[in-house]
Amino acid sequence: MACHRLDGFLVVARENIFYLNGFSGDDSWLLITAEREILITDFRFQEQADANLPPECEVSLRSRKSLSAKTAELCRKLSLKKIGFEERYLSYHKFHLLKKALKSRELRPAGDLVEVLRMIKDPEEIDLLRRSARMTTRVLSMAMKGLTSAMTESDLAGRVNIGLLRDGGRSAFPPIVAVGARSSQPHAIASCHHLEEENILLIDLGAESEAYNSDMTRTFVLGNFPRKFKTIYRAVLGAQKKAIRSIRLGVPASLIDGAARGYLEERGYGSYFGHSLGHGVGLEVHERPVISSRSRDIIKKGMVFTVEPGVYIPGWGGIRIEDTVLVTENGYEILTEYPKDLESMVIKRNLKR
Amino acid sequence: MACHRLDGFLVVARENIFYLNGFSGDDSWLLITAEREILITDFRFQEQADANLPPECEVSLRSRKSLSAKTAELCRKLSLKKIGFEERYLSYHKFHLLKKALKSRELRPAGDLVEVLRMIKDPEEIDLLRRSARMTTRVLSMAMKGLTSAMTESDLAGRVNIGLLRDGGRSAFPPIVAVGARSSQPHAIASCHHLEEENILLIDLGAESEAYNSDMTRTFVLGNFPRKFKTIYRAVLGAQKKAIRSIRLGVPASLIDGAARGYLEERGYGSYFGHSLGHGVGLEVHERPVISSRSRDIIKKGMVFTVEPGVYIPGWGGIRIEDTVLVTENGYEILTEYPKDLESMVIKRNLKR
Repeated sequence: MACHRLDGFLVVARENIFYLNGFSGDDSWLLITAEREILITDFRFQEQADANLPPECEVSLRSRKSLSAKTAELCRKLSLKKIGFEERYLSYHKFHLLKKALKSRELRPAGDLVEVLRMIKDPEEIDLLRRSARMTTRVLSMAMKGLTSAMTESDLAGRVNIGLLRDGGRSAFPPIVAVGARSSQPHAIASCHHLEEENILLIDLGAESEAYNSDMTRTFVLGNFPRKFKTIYRAVLGAQKKAIRSIRLGVPASLIDGAARGYLEERGYGSYFGHSLGHGVGLEVHERPVISSRSRDIIKKGMVFTVEPGVYIPGWGGIRIEDTVLVTENGYEILTEYPKDLESMVIKRNLKR
Repeated sequence: MACHRLDGFLVVARENIFYLNGFSGDDSWLLITAEREILITDFRFQEQADANLPPECEVSLRSRKSLSAKTAELCRKLSLKKIGFEERYLSYHKFHLLKKALKSRELRPAGDLVEVLRMIKDPEEIDLLRRSARMTTRVLSMAMKGLTSAMTESDLAGRVNIGLLRDGGRSAFPPIVAVGARSSQPHAIASCHHLEEENILLIDLGAESEAYNSDMTRTFVLGNFPRKFKTIYRAVLGAQKKAIRSIRLGVPASLIDGAARGYLEERGYGSYFGHSLGHGVGLEVHERPVISSRSRDIIKKGMVFTVEPGVYIPGWGGIRIEDTVLVTENGYEILTEYPKDLESMVIKRNLKR
């Protein structure tokens, strides 16, 4: 705040508020000044705020006033002149309501102050992320055990969803289960396609456990795999391993992306890898750091992000291998420990029906 | 668009895009002009777009360009001068990126054009909403059958989540399960409180089934109910019935809210009913129309919304009764058919452990 010469900073993103003080209600903003921290909320979340907030955080109920009107009232009382806000989360509409209510006080975009803090996970967060990752691998193991060839993509997605609930978490996002040529859609929606008809089975899943997420993809092959699968699988796995091995403190995130991308380009698959290599994982499934060719983030200890190269060939299919990785003092730790060598990906054809 | 004198309208809300053309990918915008409809998306959603979009909707891939840059390029090619956008959904940040990319072209907030269309459900949507509501009531019935006094709020929420998945849907929102005094928090988070320790059991749940949502709350009493429960329950139920009976074509939504609020005020509970009476339900759990004292929406045929009065007494508990209701030619149809008379709310104390 001092850098930005702000008298106050308005946190509007739900995850950012939760990160700062543990409050998880909706429709609430957090006003921070050099001395005070005030949650602006309403009746519906009053008891939750009273019970969960640390003592230094005050609660201000907006009653019948709008969030903007109540915030402006507080800014007036506290004589705040320059108020920063989170421009990525405040809608154009709410910005204008607030600006109008604030009258001559200055309201200025102040970037991602909290997101930058959230990039570096503390030991407690790392513990939660590790648990979330373990839940993900455990549930995938269970889901794969019960596989039958009569199952559809949706059935398998359902098993993942139910497995995560049973394990005390829930799906961080609707699992992507895509068979055959459908696996070339990086964000395919699980459908009624049967497993038995196809060779490729791509599963992208993640647990949300105690507010922290994880994200993992494995691509299996059903029955005898075509030579093409083998070649591409090895290229994607090689690219992923190369990228993971390039993780070290102080390296630009773009270099990690470049390691995988270069590896695939050398093998002629560059044009089939159309998305960025990865993304931070924490309170959100997609957060900072950005792991892409254009990222300006620098790798630091305590960052947690995905490494997920893929080769997608329309009409044939896609192969993606994704892990959630923690940056450590001396390199990295893969949080989603699930086999990914080619042999482990083969599912026998004689599945029971 | 003609009213607003726009050459183009940019749809940025995911649900609005889905409503218009069935596309459900992320990070995509839809540009509409008098003649054309262009989905601006990227590689990840290309196949999904090709497979799902109606033939009149074109697809424009942004490749390595940002959404704003690609949109500006299209606006230039189509010689659009005034472009409307959805100010409630576009962030301040993206607005500025787009404005910069558009240079001298005018970018103006154009309100909730699509949300207004979405308020009136067509027969196909009503069918889906009815199915979603039936799933909700069916799953609550099943969850309540297996109740044991050793269960916690979280256990019961888990049963609801799993039940909805098994039934082919999923939770539209994390179910609210709150026992005893915790039920006075309208948005309580299911915790490890045991059922057996308390008298009141409030459950607020909803299915999402084929993209359409439903929303229902019931408040049960465990064992012999205190006189206070009986009195307040009857007041809330009376208020809900009065509000529902006041639904008819052409009436202001604020009047429906007023019917319930007035009923509770007459009985001395006005100050314990701190939220608005209801909200529209459709592709989102909360959408237009707004059913509150300040709403300007007018009741029309095909609207679907909740009617959910509640009385919340801190330290004692809360009672809320909520149904999802469809507006018909001659009045209304309650979609969430689940018993709510006082007698049906009693759960015997001798639950098996």
